Amino acid sequence: MGERNLSLLMDFYELTMANGYFKDKKHNQIAVFDVFFRSIPDDGGYAIFAGLEQVVDYIKNLKFEAEELAYLRSKKIFDEDFLTYLKTFSFHCDVYAMKEGTPIFPHEPILVVKGPILECQLIETMVLLTINHQSLIATKAARIVFAAQGRGVLEFGARRAHGYDASIFGARAAYISGVVGSSNTYVDYAYQIPALGTMAHSYVQSYGSEYEAFRAYALTYPNNAVLLVDTYNTLKQGIPNAIKIQHEVLAPMGCELKGIRLDSGDLTYLTKEARKMLDAAGLKNTKITVSNSLDEYLIKELIHQGAQIDSFGVGERLVTARSEAVFGGVFKLSAIEVDGELVSKIKISDNVQKTTIPGFKQVYRFYDEHGMAEADVMTLFEEEIDANKPYHLFDPNFPWKSKDIEKYTTQQLLVPIFKKGKLVYELPTLLEIRAYAKEQHAKLWPEVLRLEKPHEYYVDLSQDLWDLKQSLIKQYKK
Amino acid sequence: MGERNLSLLMDFYELTMANGYFKDKKHNQIAVFDVFFRSIPDDGGYAIFAGLEQVVDYIKNLKFEAEELAYLRSKKIFDEDFLTYLKTFSFHCDVYAMKEGTPIFPHEPILVVKGPILECQLIETMVLLTINHQSLIATKAARIVFAAQGRGVLEFGARRAHGYDASIFGARAAYISGVVGSSNTYVDYAYQIPALGTMAHSYVQSYGSEYEAFRAYALTYPNNAVLLVDTYNTLKQGIPNAIKIQHEVLAPMGCELKGIRLDSGDLTYLTKEARKMLDAAGLKNTKITVSNSLDEYLIKELIHQGAQIDSFGVGERLVTARSEAVFGGVFKLSAIEVDGELVSKIKISDNVQKTTIPGFKQVYRFYDEHGMAEADVMTLFEEEIDANKPYHLFDPNFPWKSKDIEKYTTQQLLVPIFKKGKLVYELPTLLEIRAYAKEQHAKLWPEVLRLEKPHEYYVDLSQDLWDLKQSLIKQYKK
Repeated sequence: MGERNLSLLMDFYELTMANGYFKDKKHNQIAVFDVFFRSIPDDGGYAIFAGLEQVVDYIKNLKFEAEELAYLRSKKIFDEDFLTYLKTFSFHCDVYAMKEGTPIFPHEPILVVKGPILECQLIETMVLLTINHQSLIATKAARIVFAAQGRGVLEFGARRAHGYDASIFGARAAYISGVVGSSNTYVDYAYQIPALGTMAHSYVQSYGSEYEAFRAYALTYPNNAVLLVDTYNTLKQGIPNAIKIQHEVLAPMGCELKGIRLDSGDLTYLTKEARKMLDAAGLKNTKITVSNSLDEYLIKELIHQGAQIDSFGVGERLVTARSEAVFGGVFKLSAIEVDGELVSKIKISDNVQKTTIPGFKQVYRFYDEHGMAEADVMTLFEEEIDANKPYHLFDPNFPWKSKDIEKYTTQQLLVPIFKKGKLVYELPTLLEIRAYAKEQHAKLWPEVLRLEKPHEYYVDLSQDLWDLKQSLIKQYKK
Repeated sequence: MGERNLSLLMDFYELTMANGYFKDKKHNQIAVFDVFFRSIPDDGGYAIFAGLEQVVDYIKNLKFEAEELAYLRSKKIFDEDFLTYLKTFSFHCDVYAMKEGTPIFPHEPILVVKGPILECQLIETMVLLTINHQSLIATKAARIVFAAQGRGVLEFGARRAHGYDASIFGARAAYISGVVGSSNTYVDYAYQIPALGTMAHSYVQSYGSEYEAFRAYALTYPNNAVLLVDTYNTLKQGIPNAIKIQHEVLAPMGCELKGIRLDSGDLTYLTKEARKMLDAAGLKNTKITVSNSLDEYLIKELIHQGAQIDSFGVGERLVTARSEAVFGGVFKLSAIEVDGELVSKIKISDNVQKTTIPGFKQVYRFYDEHGMAEADVMTLFEEEIDANKPYHLFDPNFPWKSKDIEKYTTQQLLVPIFKKGKLVYELPTLLEIRAYAKEQHAKLWPEVLRLEKPHEYYVDLSQDLWDLKQSLIKQYKK
């Protein structure tokens, strides 16, 4: 994937601003930008952070080559000195981010960039694009996998994805959140995400009869035959044919029918009947996979109704996050150096939720004595929390809502990724990320995981950060 | 973009089926597949076809290289002969498609592939992925541009797109439907789609004051200064500062403030006030651009309320088609050759709308004497329509609903793209596609273009095709 030079994939204003900074000789002024989001898709209780590896790839490869510089020159608005600067561009910022797979919550910084303001600004679009996309799909996938209660979820959305990258990185994000594989062969090839799939209706139709099609398939893949049974009539023809294949083709070869797939009709009724028919034929190990406009809500309801399903193929509603197709991460200035000193910045809005949290920050996750996540607390970056002392948690909007906690442990969620432009983070493998995501997910209370009307996880400010925010608001009002 | 080899971006089942066809020596059996969709996003009256150029690119470059073959071999389910076949793969199909920018309607084939079944099957995923994505965004953009009634629509969604391709090809599709430009610099570089944008709130915040920021910007871009006026207080500070910049910075340079942008607050009220203030300051040519969660519905209402807006920056709701993020194009077998003769295939469903239309088909668009589109008629591929004779149009589901038309012209909508694997279509430029889209859009009645509860455009079958369908249904019932 690294072969495309996407350096110009940035909002044009990043370049007009950058040229302005350069001309004003303030391009090396140190600034701090936070990436954060304001609301969780689908009114969920948590989101999942994903996309960091691709952000790292992008930053490592960010360069402006002759063709791109020629294009920029042709716009006739950029100074030649600025183009020379771009030609020899190198990255000097510090980047801190949460680890991929971390549950994340509104308003807390999930990625922080600190460095020359021009460099921070240049990476804004790609950082947001990458994180917004993958976090959107990782979040949706986590909900769907949770709804499936241990049954397999298969990512089947390639044909409805928003372009090639959406299919590829959508599958990656979904895999982080626990899907067992993808229909997209490319992600198996490139990322070792198991590719899954067997046959389409057209395959069945292309043979003289359903039986012939099943027979041909079973002979080709005796150990891996999953037969699509709903081309003509699931209960009267598809499943009886599948059972016949077991008796007439697979059994003589010493094989067993691996599975059947249904892609239409009432999935509760049909799978219950299918299970009975398969069991009666001695095919207790034959798995039932279903697909057809599934999402977390329908999966939950099918299970609730006792549908006999071993795995769910989820297509468009996962890969596009159809129910809420936007993850609204933003990139906001939180501090800027003036005369050698970092000055915290706030953006006030009439909408309280839209007022930013100022300053260069760290995020601590507090766990209770059982290891369950209790709250996140944003602090000034240098603040340290001594877990041997009680800690006073309070709601930043309603400070009288508070509690003191004693037995707890903490984890700094923002870890160094780049230091002065140099990669200092050892990127975990995809399987490591997936395992980490599972582990962190298990630390959330069921109340937070609930699909509908979940408990709102606490995201608080430290006293020092709260004081800073109040003082900036007061200052602004004058 | 052509540097990635995306040949393995296909649903794994395309490969398992292909291997099966190859093993059964039926891989060269001629088949016909239709791409069509069943419902229009947002309950609209029409969709816009887009993505053909990228489908052509994909097919032209489809090849399996050593690394990819090694990966497939490692799966241990593909025959060595099949891998050899892939190694020397070449494409022999005929492809017919609508021209990009054509208004399209449910159930009619928008792309048809005819050729060796294995080859048809291999391209399924990428054809659908490409067309579904770009047609989704082209359709959404057409609605938004229509709602803006001649005012400019700017595509600003890069940071919320579903990955890099979604931003790039989303901007391309939106441009086909009439947006005037995109924030994504890459698409200007690669596709000459004008890149647009000026400054972010962070730029304003990074200076000591809003006035200083505006001044720096105006000095850098005296002929192109569009100032973001809502960082602090739009009416009390932002616009007065912008006007001051005109008087103190731009006028002395002989320049005029190009525009202001608002990204928050009540856009109707604020733009009315802004217009008055600008006009009173003699800045009648200064344009007002707004952004902030816009879509066709909000744009329509802002205009209805008399908001003073010259152009709309539309972000996430365009680039993700948030209100309905899926275009449901499917790829279905419509005919297959048996003993040298093409046999039409139908897939029956209890859901009438899901029963496919059989056979190798053409689509004719009928225009009335004023050149307005009246109906589409699907025919058998070889049928010819003599526009000198009256034509009997009838509803395929309710055949008694019919009318005879006399003064009409017709256009064959499916044009040859590949013949026996060879590209025979001269790809139009993006500007030509955009002009064609505009021209075709103008041939739709306002009733069809209406955003809500539009008139349902007629999509009929010819008598011969209707007869074929009925005979296959009867045959199936036996």
